[in-house]
Amino acid sequence: MVKYNSKDKTNESVLNATFSALADPTRRKILMHLVSGEATVLELAEPFEMSIPGISKHLKVLEKAGLIERGRSAQYRPCKLRLEPLQKADNWMDQYRNMWEDRLDQLDDYLQKLQKEQITKNKLSKGNKI
Amino acid sequence: MVKYNSKDKTNESVLNATFSALADPTRRKILMHLVSGEATVLELAEPFEMSIPGISKHLKVLEKAGLIERGRSAQYRPCKLRLEPLQKADNWMDQYRNMWEDRLDQLDDYLQKLQKEQITKNKLSKGNKI
Repeated sequence: MVKYNSKDKTNESVLNATFSALADPTRRKILMHLVSGEATVLELAEPFEMSIPGISKHLKVLEKAGLIERGRSAQYRPCKLRLEPLQKADNWMDQYRNMWEDRLDQLDDYLQKLQKEQITKNKLSKGNKI
Repeated sequence: MVKYNSKDKTNESVLNATFSALADPTRRKILMHLVSGEATVLELAEPFEMSIPGISKHLKVLEKAGLIERGRSAQYRPCKLRLEPLQKADNWMDQYRNMWEDRLDQLDDYLQKLQKEQITKNKLSKGNKI
């Protein structure tokens, strides 16, 4: 049985909500838009063929996941990107990143070995011709 | 309106399926287990308090998302991790990683500036006492 302590539980819930929020292309595009700075719902809705209530639903998911925060100005409530949950997701990905970097290193070693063998073969073949 | 070309569409579907699969703690634990090598369903089910059909459902989600592949041996069908979809998700995260690295650099600069100001103040204060 897999047991979590309370710190793991919090981290696990953040990861659940973050990955779930990122599983939608509109929400990913909204986050990408917010990289360049704060934006209102109207500004965010503009590039999508979507109603304001449609965009608002996505914003609620992002806000619940802690990926955005909304300003207090009642009329505009501008949205701002929050990086912390993305950092947690990125930390989780770290273990796999190390794994594929190791694989790339192994591939590189293998290709270098092949190249050396080819050079030796070419030299031997030239030697035989002389 | 946001328009995607066919390459974007494929990439978007991979990201949708990958993030959706990662939004569950059991599936993340299964992937973590597979980092150390191939495993059968029985081996994967062992650390969880979950039935074999329960684990199998999660494996189907992971397989559909391309995050694992199953062997052909009819009896065991061992599961193996596939890194490609994780690499795509990692590439997507890259843009935010650059952003928070910039923020950390800015914070570092700010702290160094504060430290220098404190040293200057301390020197002046000592000078005044002499």
